[in-house]
Amino acid sequence: MGGLPGMKESLLNVVLFQPQIPHNTGAVGRTCVGVGAKLWIVRPCAFQFSDKNLKRAGLDYWPYLEWEMVDSWDDLLTKLPQTERYFFYTKFAQNSYLDQKYQPGDTLVFGCETTGLPDEFRVRYADQCVRIPICDEARCLNLSVSVGVAAFEAIRQIRSADSDF
Amino acid sequence: MGGLPGMKESLLNVVLFQPQIPHNTGAVGRTCVGVGAKLWIVRPCAFQFSDKNLKRAGLDYWPYLEWEMVDSWDDLLTKLPQTERYFFYTKFAQNSYLDQKYQPGDTLVFGCETTGLPDEFRVRYADQCVRIPICDEARCLNLSVSVGVAAFEAIRQIRSADSDF
Repeated sequence: MGGLPGMKESLLNVVLFQPQIPHNTGAVGRTCVGVGAKLWIVRPCAFQFSDKNLKRAGLDYWPYLEWEMVDSWDDLLTKLPQTERYFFYTKFAQNSYLDQKYQPGDTLVFGCETTGLPDEFRVRYADQCVRIPICDEARCLNLSVSVGVAAFEAIRQIRSADSDF
Repeated sequence: MGGLPGMKESLLNVVLFQPQIPHNTGAVGRTCVGVGAKLWIVRPCAFQFSDKNLKRAGLDYWPYLEWEMVDSWDDLLTKLPQTERYFFYTKFAQNSYLDQKYQPGDTLVFGCETTGLPDEFRVRYADQCVRIPICDEARCLNLSVSVGVAAFEAIRQIRSADSDF
């Protein structure tokens, strides 16, 4: 859907599964432009994503964002079939996001603000679930903060392994 | 001001200089609880910080947050005098936040959403200014995302150097 002509291939994919809060998705979009990631939004989305709304929200970086909405999880899997390179961010995971090895083209998946990822994902993709370790009292991070922390760790690793990125 | 009795000493200090958008400060507060940082807010602050407003905003982690408001930058310097351990996050800096060595007790300073840090800070603390490298098109990251990326990189380093943290 988005992205200016001639943009190079995205370094990462960021997936928001059924996001609910517009300004979080806006902040995630900005992060994606910043790190060179493509943003995927899995419907249903709780808010309107019209050009008019985006413009009103002052998201002046949006024209530079490579992004796409898909109708369902299965639709995403058709378009991004390399599921072995998916990482699922959930506070219920045992493994830390810091102990993973990220590669160009990896896909980082985040659930919605209130309920996170569906339980069935945590079963189906159990080995690919990771957490951002935090003190218990915070329960979880803001969604856009989680995406930022995860994406910048991934590109830190990718760039330290290969200075071409 | 805040924080439950018996809380241990903060691992980091996060300073928001004259923040303007309440939900950004809310998300930063959550990040601070998550990483064990104390939040400092330098007045003037563009919004009311009453208990009633915080409760209404559903910030249920706020009681666990160690935080303090100060009247001015000089007031902060009196209370946190180790200025050699301050890091100033600005898109105008040359040095990357990744090339710094962080220690327990370090202070991470962020400007307001619209204008960033005052120009005079970038002169006075030139050697301590760092940037989070991003593609130019994004201009900058959302404030709460910047704080998250910076704070998690600091604790990643601190914890990898000493597993007691």
